[in-house]
Amino acid sequence: MLYISILGSTGSIGQQTLDVISENPDRFAVVGLAAGYNWELILQQIEQFQPQIVAVATEEIAAKVKLHTTKCVQVLYGEEGLTEVATIDKAQFVVSAIVGSAGLAPTLQAIEARKTIGLANKETLVTAGHIVMSKAKQYGVPILPIDSEHSAIFQCLQGENSASVERLILTASGGAFRDKKREELRDVTVEAALQHPNWQMGAKITIDSATMMNKGLEVIEAHWLFQLSFTKIDCILHRESIVHSMVEFSDRALKAQLGTPDMRVPIQYAMTYPERIPLNTPPLDWGKLAELHFAPVDFERYPALKLAYQCGTSGGTMPTVLNAANEIIVGRFLKGEFPFLEIEPAIESILSKHESIPDPNLEEIWAADQWARHMAAEIPNK
Amino acid sequence: MLYISILGSTGSIGQQTLDVISENPDRFAVVGLAAGYNWELILQQIEQFQPQIVAVATEEIAAKVKLHTTKCVQVLYGEEGLTEVATIDKAQFVVSAIVGSAGLAPTLQAIEARKTIGLANKETLVTAGHIVMSKAKQYGVPILPIDSEHSAIFQCLQGENSASVERLILTASGGAFRDKKREELRDVTVEAALQHPNWQMGAKITIDSATMMNKGLEVIEAHWLFQLSFTKIDCILHRESIVHSMVEFSDRALKAQLGTPDMRVPIQYAMTYPERIPLNTPPLDWGKLAELHFAPVDFERYPALKLAYQCGTSGGTMPTVLNAANEIIVGRFLKGEFPFLEIEPAIESILSKHESIPDPNLEEIWAADQWARHMAAEIPNK
Repeated sequence: MLYISILGSTGSIGQQTLDVISENPDRFAVVGLAAGYNWELILQQIEQFQPQIVAVATEEIAAKVKLHTTKCVQVLYGEEGLTEVATIDKAQFVVSAIVGSAGLAPTLQAIEARKTIGLANKETLVTAGHIVMSKAKQYGVPILPIDSEHSAIFQCLQGENSASVERLILTASGGAFRDKKREELRDVTVEAALQHPNWQMGAKITIDSATMMNKGLEVIEAHWLFQLSFTKIDCILHRESIVHSMVEFSDRALKAQLGTPDMRVPIQYAMTYPERIPLNTPPLDWGKLAELHFAPVDFERYPALKLAYQCGTSGGTMPTVLNAANEIIVGRFLKGEFPFLEIEPAIESILSKHESIPDPNLEEIWAADQWARHMAAEIPNK
Repeated sequence: MLYISILGSTGSIGQQTLDVISENPDRFAVVGLAAGYNWELILQQIEQFQPQIVAVATEEIAAKVKLHTTKCVQVLYGEEGLTEVATIDKAQFVVSAIVGSAGLAPTLQAIEARKTIGLANKETLVTAGHIVMSKAKQYGVPILPIDSEHSAIFQCLQGENSASVERLILTASGGAFRDKKREELRDVTVEAALQHPNWQMGAKITIDSATMMNKGLEVIEAHWLFQLSFTKIDCILHRESIVHSMVEFSDRALKAQLGTPDMRVPIQYAMTYPERIPLNTPPLDWGKLAELHFAPVDFERYPALKLAYQCGTSGGTMPTVLNAANEIIVGRFLKGEFPFLEIEPAIESILSKHESIPDPNLEEIWAADQWARHMAAEIPNK
């Protein structure tokens, strides 16, 4: 039995993790759940999975949950609650699926508590990859990716010597507006931007997919996860999202991992690694799927991706600022405060004002994160 | 240093193996070479690679080689020569690349002499898979595939538990006539049939590719190599020959191995397994390669493939007869004695007359092979 805590249990990844767990009650059990404000859903999750501990955002939400639950469960809140769920003794595996920089601290705590990490929160590696990876090494903790691209690469690397990796190739759907030129995006609505062609995801990541900031953050994440220089990490447009990513080796052989888009595949793989177990998802239908398309990425069309490569290569606190500024600016776009095409220029203007700190510690990362958020909040509506 | 003998050194696979060796003189050395009648090429190979022993088809060819070589090399001929090259003490790795059933005996001898086998001769497994695999197990000898499809599957299986394999998917280009309906093939010429769209190969295998008998033999080979039932082995049309084959796992994740068609990739992988070394071949150009196409295989269009599944599933001496009859009939097609569309009916008529022997020994396989060749030779020209 694998005992699991989930940071971010009411989000998209959290819910799908619970789906995998519910299909395999003889194999997985839930110990802790951390969520934010969605008290009705967390109540349902408590009833179904009977965790020992639950953490929510605030005392008020905690009180509501405690009042309404029929189960005997410890309900905590705030940072303390997150820490508790991330480090609870019985948990062997912690799913880090809180969106944004908030996932960093509990993930580091889980590593120190020697939990295997299933990492869905990409900001953890984007902002503090050097700290997270060295801590994971120090504590002998595996960091297993549970987004589709990094899981694909991780799967392709099994049985291979990492020294023979020539190149990682991350596939990108191109997002909601991939068939439009950049100048056609001037007046796109929030609703249109939220229509991802292949994946059902949260709002923020769907916008990041349309700008390809998502892919840029994934490039930085891949840099840390697989310990490869940015010159060895490429992106390629692949509209069907069937090939989830690829690895090219020194003999020019490539391996790809593919399948119907279903996040439960990488989630479950992290939970059963290095084994696999059956998953109740339809197999890829090659009869229907007549064509797979691939095309090079145009950096001028997707300036967010270019910014990410630049920030990743510069290192220091640049990726932190990129990520934090993006979070705020995307949030403001979702509120209608920014047009779509102003997302990247706003981020770039903040980056241009930032004095990067090389090899930053957590406080310096935190300060850079706060600075970027403040800067991003200050930009007038457009 | 890996010491290598090559059975079939003047053929397509043999020459490409020597090409890989010549690029890595610090890593590979040639001990023995076996060829047929091409004494001029074997002379060149002796000069360049300086093997200890060479075997050719006949005493006459051997005398010619011995007369003209400037090197100190033992020149043998006939079955004895093949045996010697397959079992020579210093060789650690034997490339089995003789086309047709003639590859079986020396491959078994090499296994008994505990040489790692790089298997390009698919008839070895098709006709005697049960004997070859149990002997390999008995002697602790790895059988490493060096055709592109099985190497692709073998690469995809690295780091995976074979118990979680759901399905092998062999890709098939569809051969020279893939864009024609079956009724359009009535009057195709030998020359047209020899134009394979993606691969430069020998004449026999190019015809086998056009009928898909090649894929059928590969299905039977895959059955033995990966120890999977025929219901778990599928074929799919893939015209670009970029995806060399795939594996589907129990969680519906698929892995594919892909790359520019270059047989040196699987050849070298077998020679460096489980490591990889750089190969001087261009990387896949995703800029040029905009689309990959896939389609289900129509068994009515490719009756040879259907015959292969039937023979593989029946087992016994049926695959031997399929293979032997095919060799003769294709040879006769190449001589202009048969129209293209009569290849499969001729084979089917022989199969229908064969009384299969279950779990045959080598003599029974040999007898079935000879019977089928005799039957195939007896059919009047059409």
